[in-house]
Amino acid sequence: MSKEITARSEDYSKWYNDLVVKGGLADYSAVRGCMVIKPYGYALWEAMRDVLDSKFKETGHQNAYFPLFIPKSFLSKEAAHVEGFAKECAVVTHYRLKNDPNGGGVVVDPEAKLEEELIVRPTSETIIWNTYKDWIQSYRDLPLLINQWANVVRWEMRTRLFLRTAEFLWQEGHTAHATAEEAIAETEQMLHIYAEFAEQYMAVPVIRGVKTASERFAGAVNTYCVEALMQDGKALQAGTSHFLGQNFAKAFDVQFSNKENKLDYVWATSWGVSTRLIGGLIMVHSDDQGLVLPPRIAPLQVVIVPIYKGADQKTALDEKVNGIVAELKKAGIRVKYDDSDNNRPGWKFAEYEMKGVPVRIAIGARDLENNVAEVARRDTKEKMSLSLDGLAGRIGELLEEIQQHLFTKAKTYRDEHITRVDNFEEFQKVLDEKTGFVSAHWDGTAETEEKIKELTKATIRCIPLDNPQEAGTCVLTGKPSKERVLFARAY
Amino acid sequence: MSKEITARSEDYSKWYNDLVVKGGLADYSAVRGCMVIKPYGYALWEAMRDVLDSKFKETGHQNAYFPLFIPKSFLSKEAAHVEGFAKECAVVTHYRLKNDPNGGGVVVDPEAKLEEELIVRPTSETIIWNTYKDWIQSYRDLPLLINQWANVVRWEMRTRLFLRTAEFLWQEGHTAHATAEEAIAETEQMLHIYAEFAEQYMAVPVIRGVKTASERFAGAVNTYCVEALMQDGKALQAGTSHFLGQNFAKAFDVQFSNKENKLDYVWATSWGVSTRLIGGLIMVHSDDQGLVLPPRIAPLQVVIVPIYKGADQKTALDEKVNGIVAELKKAGIRVKYDDSDNNRPGWKFAEYEMKGVPVRIAIGARDLENNVAEVARRDTKEKMSLSLDGLAGRIGELLEEIQQHLFTKAKTYRDEHITRVDNFEEFQKVLDEKTGFVSAHWDGTAETEEKIKELTKATIRCIPLDNPQEAGTCVLTGKPSKERVLFARAY
Repeated sequence: MSKEITARSEDYSKWYNDLVVKGGLADYSAVRGCMVIKPYGYALWEAMRDVLDSKFKETGHQNAYFPLFIPKSFLSKEAAHVEGFAKECAVVTHYRLKNDPNGGGVVVDPEAKLEEELIVRPTSETIIWNTYKDWIQSYRDLPLLINQWANVVRWEMRTRLFLRTAEFLWQEGHTAHATAEEAIAETEQMLHIYAEFAEQYMAVPVIRGVKTASERFAGAVNTYCVEALMQDGKALQAGTSHFLGQNFAKAFDVQFSNKENKLDYVWATSWGVSTRLIGGLIMVHSDDQGLVLPPRIAPLQVVIVPIYKGADQKTALDEKVNGIVAELKKAGIRVKYDDSDNNRPGWKFAEYEMKGVPVRIAIGARDLENNVAEVARRDTKEKMSLSLDGLAGRIGELLEEIQQHLFTKAKTYRDEHITRVDNFEEFQKVLDEKTGFVSAHWDGTAETEEKIKELTKATIRCIPLDNPQEAGTCVLTGKPSKERVLFARAY
Repeated sequence: MSKEITARSEDYSKWYNDLVVKGGLADYSAVRGCMVIKPYGYALWEAMRDVLDSKFKETGHQNAYFPLFIPKSFLSKEAAHVEGFAKECAVVTHYRLKNDPNGGGVVVDPEAKLEEELIVRPTSETIIWNTYKDWIQSYRDLPLLINQWANVVRWEMRTRLFLRTAEFLWQEGHTAHATAEEAIAETEQMLHIYAEFAEQYMAVPVIRGVKTASERFAGAVNTYCVEALMQDGKALQAGTSHFLGQNFAKAFDVQFSNKENKLDYVWATSWGVSTRLIGGLIMVHSDDQGLVLPPRIAPLQVVIVPIYKGADQKTALDEKVNGIVAELKKAGIRVKYDDSDNNRPGWKFAEYEMKGVPVRIAIGARDLENNVAEVARRDTKEKMSLSLDGLAGRIGELLEEIQQHLFTKAKTYRDEHITRVDNFEEFQKVLDEKTGFVSAHWDGTAETEEKIKELTKATIRCIPLDNPQEAGTCVLTGKPSKERVLFARAY
């Protein structure tokens, strides 16, 4: 078959790329580092977006839309922020093209130069806080709970589909509060929403924690994160939620009069997840036959493939299957009856296996006689013969079983790949051989963190929330430590 | 009140701007020509988007996402297209900022100059047809029915909130077909979807037609449009659907092998509506008290304002109103109980009137005793006392009545403002005094069309579909004509 996939054991990175491209999720475009999200990939993103969007709205957030462009001077107002984003950003300098008088085709018109360059947003804190200045005067205007679904651009030099692209889609929440306590509570609330989404919908177990100072978002006081583990033993950050303190309020002079009628700077949070999540989703569940998608966010949950010879058998099958399709749809199940005659059943089986459709139903003439269908699970590859009576109910249960099984399997793998180590030799050995998270003591300094990264390519993924306090000594320096942190190599 | 609105009769343009800003829909941003869509405006866009998106999906279209950037050379491949868009586009020339060694803050790094400039998409035909080249080989790959929800940028010099902004949100459909007939049928189908959406959801009556050659989309063979009439008698284009022939297929060399196994160029369509629709919606229905929104897309359909003195009355009201809210929500009605104590009932009445909420319910202590509520329609300002028994059912009917009334009122106004004229003096007089559409004979030449535009500022809005054929003479030149066309001054 032309759609053969590289095995994970052979080349993990190529396996990943094969799944994305051959599974019909995305592909590179003619624009360096930018991807085209194909219909199947976009449907997956829509399913994820819809769940998150309703969770945001349930917790009182409203969507809005802010400009794509950020004046260069805005980016510069928060010192750490500009440091973090200036090195890789798309800069708009002109607003017109013209015909080259020397016959060189269409060229930039030098007379249409902008007075101030515009940056294509890499994130929107600066343009949003400049706007909030007009929206917030009093404590009565707070909290302000806004989210934006948008595209952003970061000029990454090395790109990988979904995981790291110059342009990506995301949501970014930006909230404003009267007190630090409230802002911190919001930061934590959104982290838990991300964690619940990852676990309950993506079937991806995550560790909730906070970043060390050197891994913080540029401009944040504290960055919370959820970290997931991929099948190659590398970690992937699956969402971040930042407590921004009063940094952006001060940079953009956003003050409010509090209940005591005194002026104070507003407290801020921001939080986001992106199309990067799709990369993580793929790497947690899929196998050498293709994608494996969790039912709750799979664009297509069930595919039905008819097996027949001749028009009479087809007609009989159609009649029965149309009833089943209606029944499944009524039960809220996303189902497709693929009766196209372009391809043979074997081709279709491979295609839907590649696309990770959770349940495949095959029905032939003899099945009709016996009032059964062959039902195959994508996750375990188990096949079973099920009665056509009450099929929709059984399929609904099966989808839930698959959802739970994917989570349990991923969690077992993840839990087996958190290794406590107490010396640096073991630390390196675990990273190289067993892979996964390493739980180790660290002396709390950025120097040691950097040194460990140089030596092992592992970073501190997070200090888990509710981390047990335990006296120990740093795995590299032997200096005293009060708690273990989680190290891993990461995407 | 601080939120006073300029009257239409005083300054129509200022009235419009007041509604957008004070109604909480949008505002200008710090970036020239770019707007911030505020939560209430974005909720309106979401409601419109959701209806359109489901109509696109029902007709077999899938969403996808293509890059924000278009290489300059792509834009140049279709001659008419580059002519149409090169004059006002945002050009990315660099990919990095750096600290000015001379202490001038953050500046563009001259060493990070792109080899080829990138244009921020003003529309996506070029990048999409460059991609379709890889997706289409055979007639089996056709039709390809794709839609994209995205932001686009056109560097307009004179901007107005929603109506004309440098950045706007829109959807753009891009389809590929094996035959011209199929592509034309698609173009027409999408035009009808736009027309039905405008009339049934926005309550905006539209005329379906085709553009003259000089008003066509840059690169189209034929442009279909829906045209609406605003309260100031000016027309607004509320959606376009283009038959692109083989122009883009030829520019990007997209060929397919047809059923006879011969190579042929693919036939194309594109179609779009944007946040501009919100501007039209406002101008068709609203009045000097504020926005008037049609119930089917109003973010909030019903607001309930309690009128009470003291905590006891409030408790009694809360209990009853919470039941009503639950009942309304169960009936699928978007309702808010505004029991905030920051503002008095009178302030709230004015606020929700300004925001165009279709139905306001006020309930006081005496109403409770009588088991009634005061219900006010935003459109007619009619007030009625309704029994609390079965209120949800009655409100549901009322919302439908309002929806129909808005459409009928707008259609009556529109129909009264289509004037047949047969000489140029009358033509000018109608445009100046009565305003609206002028139905007149035209000799079919671009020269006459241009001359009329110079003399009157009116353009040919469209040649209506199914236009009656009628011999006549051109209103300007007296040359023979076979049909009337619709002229108007337009946004």
